[in-house]
Amino acid sequence: MKIAILPGDGIGTEIVAEAVKVLNVLDLPFETETALVGGAAYAAHGHPLPESTLALAKAADAVLFGAVGDWKYDTLERSLRPEQAILGLRKHLGLFANLRPALCYEQLTHASSLKPELVAGLDILIIRELTGDIYFGQPRGRRIAVDGHFPGAEEAFDTMRYSRPEIERIAHVAFQAARKRRGKVTSVDKANVLETFQFWKDVVTEVHAQYPDVELEHMYVDNAAMQLVKAPKKFDVVFTGNMFGDILSDEAAMLTGSIGMLPSASLDKNNKGLYEPSHGSAPDIAGQGIANPLATILSAAMMLRYTLAQPEAADRIESAVRAVLAAGLRTADIWSEGTQRVGTAQMGDAVVAAI
Amino acid sequence: MKIAILPGDGIGTEIVAEAVKVLNVLDLPFETETALVGGAAYAAHGHPLPESTLALAKAADAVLFGAVGDWKYDTLERSLRPEQAILGLRKHLGLFANLRPALCYEQLTHASSLKPELVAGLDILIIRELTGDIYFGQPRGRRIAVDGHFPGAEEAFDTMRYSRPEIERIAHVAFQAARKRRGKVTSVDKANVLETFQFWKDVVTEVHAQYPDVELEHMYVDNAAMQLVKAPKKFDVVFTGNMFGDILSDEAAMLTGSIGMLPSASLDKNNKGLYEPSHGSAPDIAGQGIANPLATILSAAMMLRYTLAQPEAADRIESAVRAVLAAGLRTADIWSEGTQRVGTAQMGDAVVAAI
Ligand SMILES: CC(C)[C@H](C(=O)O)[C@@H](O)C(=O)O
Ligand SMILES: CC(C)[C@H](C(=O)O)[C@@H](O)C(=O)O
Repeated sequence: MKIAILPGDGIGTEIVAEAVKVLNVLDLPFETETALVGGAAYAAHGHPLPESTLALAKAADAVLFGAVGDWKYDTLERSLRPEQAILGLRKHLGLFANLRPALCYEQLTHASSLKPELVAGLDILIIRELTGDIYFGQPRGRRIAVDGHFPGAEEAFDTMRYSRPEIERIAHVAFQAARKRRGKVTSVDKANVLETFQFWKDVVTEVHAQYPDVELEHMYVDNAAMQLVKAPKKFDVVFTGNMFGDILSDEAAMLTGSIGMLPSASLDKNNKGLYEPSHGSAPDIAGQGIANPLATILSAAMMLRYTLAQPEAADRIESAVRAVLAAGLRTADIWSEGTQRVGTAQMGDAVVAAI
Repeated sequence: MKIAILPGDGIGTEIVAEAVKVLNVLDLPFETETALVGGAAYAAHGHPLPESTLALAKAADAVLFGAVGDWKYDTLERSLRPEQAILGLRKHLGLFANLRPALCYEQLTHASSLKPELVAGLDILIIRELTGDIYFGQPRGRRIAVDGHFPGAEEAFDTMRYSRPEIERIAHVAFQAARKRRGKVTSVDKANVLETFQFWKDVVTEVHAQYPDVELEHMYVDNAAMQLVKAPKKFDVVFTGNMFGDILSDEAAMLTGSIGMLPSASLDKNNKGLYEPSHGSAPDIAGQGIANPLATILSAAMMLRYTLAQPEAADRIESAVRAVLAAGLRTADIWSEGTQRVGTAQMGDAVVAAI
């Protein structure tokens, strides 16, 4: 098995190094190969996703990804900016299924903005479609408007779209995931306004017929944004498209108060995947050795579970992370009175020791 | 001056009655005319926005709107469903500027899901563009895909679009509103992915040159969804398009914990407007006399301020609402131990008495 390691920018290098440390101690039969991505790749090769990096990612069984982005690259034209690397990887690897758990660890409940009783024990799984919707829909661009409120004016436009097979395949992922959890899917749409999401709702309802054991609820996206704040524990699997998923998964992650703890998986149709922390590249604290590596370490655990078929190894990592938290070790982002503040490498070492 | 009264469905009738009671006690020179809208109009006339109702709304100086929607109408085809009334009114009246304050009243701070220190004194104004974006963009519909992931498959699509003058006029509204507040605008976009919102960002930046006294910050929509949970008080004016505004304004409203208190205004280019509570029609509690009329009463105050040029009268209503809260009166939705539970009409009467 081969794992492509793409640390990226900002804290990416530091946190990925700890995840690799943890993987290495498990004594599994895999090799790794590292490549530049994002701003780092642009700086070295003039492109955020160089051909060689893409080729490595395609050839590998799984990709462990850090984070991309840095203010340095904010003035570049869009096609050269670091984020294009992650969009390009999703597209070229066909990673249509994004799984983002929003989990509130017992010891970190107090870190949430929400009152403890609302988030204690929170365990939501956001399933976001990742290669369709308005992210990739053509046509898009700028033009002179021929109709609308101001014909003749300059306008910009994008196309939202979903086809039946695109919705079907991600709906199966959602229902199957719910079966392994609490058996409930909340499909989030805006069927009252958008043709795309009326279709989404129709197709999801059809696919649901194959999963009579799973409860399906439909919810408008504006209501979902409210209910996540009001009573997040009512959700089990939150299932939606690329654009709404971008917004709701970040909202849900922030509800836990510990986004530095949250992993993610982006899978193709054969469960090959890219694994990355839910947080960003945090250039403001890069190079200081204080970033929290646990989201990346837990992403490596997801990789073992979903792509590399090593569920016991995944369990070992996840148990080790819980043990380290229980022992009171905290990086700066999750530190609170009475716990022990540690750096990135110390946290990685502690997880290794707990394994 | 003429006010069109459109109570709508569910609790709409009850809450609008209280707002009218409050308006009448102010002894201002206006007349009112009432018409059916939403499901009630469909039931009587076969359409959620009958010609006569639209004509009344157009002829009036302002519209006081309750709420629309009821499960009864969920199975109707989309063009006949109650929500189409509000979309139609926005479109035909040219109500492009939606103002939704998210205010946390001192006495209701504890009702928020968030920790009290995060929301005490919260005062955000969401400014949402309301007649453009993917809500109204053409073309839209269903078709057979000719490209994308599954050429030949059935697909649905919508068009997101904004023209320069559409963005400019709402940007002026946002900057001018910020001048009367704390002087900060957060323009929310997804410029890293969408052509429409790269253009939005560019045009907003240009318009900002005319408002050097206002601070402008750009934020991605996913980050905004997070920051609203993390530190809502960092915002002053949150300014965005129709789709993102739908999601973020509801998220922000729910943060306050008292959505039954939040009014809204939807204005055209001459400050003619439609005023409605931020909450919905709540058919589950309709007819019981327990709904909170304060959001509608405060919407009437906004109407006096923005359209009817009666700022003192608006102040009198807002002060009366604060006085009633201070006196401990609460409808069921905001009731807590130690306060006095009152019904819809009692609450309206109390506001009248306080005026
Ligand atoms: C960086 C950006 C293009 C990306 C997205 O919008 O999908 C990010 O926000 C995410 O959620 O992974
Ligand atoms: C009812 C619906 C069409 C409407 C919208 O999406 O704009 C509502 O959610 C709102 O925010 O006023």
